[in-house]
Amino acid sequence: METYDISPEIPLSETPIYSGRVVNLVVADVQLQNGMTSKRELVRHPGAVAIVAIDATDHLLLVRQYRFAAQQVMTEIPAGTLNPGEDPAFCAGRELQEETGYKAGELISLGGLFVAPGYTTEFIHLFLAYDLSESRLAMDDDEFIDVQRVPFNDALAMIDHGQIIDGKSIVALLKVARLR
Amino acid sequence: METYDISPEIPLSETPIYSGRVVNLVVADVQLQNGMTSKRELVRHPGAVAIVAIDATDHLLLVRQYRFAAQQVMTEIPAGTLNPGEDPAFCAGRELQEETGYKAGELISLGGLFVAPGYTTEFIHLFLAYDLSESRLAMDDDEFIDVQRVPFNDALAMIDHGQIIDGKSIVALLKVARLR
Repeated sequence: METYDISPEIPLSETPIYSGRVVNLVVADVQLQNGMTSKRELVRHPGAVAIVAIDATDHLLLVRQYRFAAQQVMTEIPAGTLNPGEDPAFCAGRELQEETGYKAGELISLGGLFVAPGYTTEFIHLFLAYDLSESRLAMDDDEFIDVQRVPFNDALAMIDHGQIIDGKSIVALLKVARLR
Repeated sequence: METYDISPEIPLSETPIYSGRVVNLVVADVQLQNGMTSKRELVRHPGAVAIVAIDATDHLLLVRQYRFAAQQVMTEIPAGTLNPGEDPAFCAGRELQEETGYKAGELISLGGLFVAPGYTTEFIHLFLAYDLSESRLAMDDDEFIDVQRVPFNDALAMIDHGQIIDGKSIVALLKVARLR
């Protein structure tokens, strides 16, 4: 097989295009490995967390919400965007409470993922939450979320059958399945 | 648990912000389930494919490339963006050849994933490729990709150890692991 130079692309300049509530868009001029220049469209995102929350009866908390970008209701694990400077584990506890009304007694890191490294900086930190107790926090006022409790193995079957098609949720659940 | 209305958000109007090579950005005004209006920042993407390519000796083809958005070299499965109207399976065969120099005799659908349904329309179609034979196609002139062959189980260990942190790659590889 041929081998290519995969050293870093060198940023030359950056044009801000849009600064929004969730994402910023910039276009960067970069110098490639062969000395040529190219443009990289870059969605800047603050990062996020997602949580596999399992209760004492081995039921998983799932959230269902209408996703405008996907044009459908999607079933996902609880998740949310990091506030500036926020600790990912703290954010995970907060988002779990906001979205499901449950507080985690124990949070274990599951690593994380870049959702689309070709064009967005978003990295999602994944957590496994145990020792759940009811404790509601107010939800964001533009979020409408339905919470479901399903046996953990049923969630795996939902992945196999194409009923869970959200990337972060599949990554997190199949990572947990490998640990069990 | 409380139940919320998760019926579709109704699009009211849309402001185009940027039309680029990979992504388009629009801001949509939507009517929420409670009658209020809100804005949704939307990255329009044509969709993509990614391929778990396994040879006759149970080795997997991985690609390593510098990802400007992630600011690091990442190890991923071969993947690429759909051309307008392109059949995903056809695209998968093309991208596998372009990125790795191997042609698939057999392609099996593994379903797919939305990479970040909170703000991008991108859906990635996943395929399992067998019956590989050498047959190179030219790579895009701004892509610098290093191809690796690793035993399939080593790739799973790379996920467990945080050496593969690309969402689509983890989803596809762990889906295949469940089928074996």
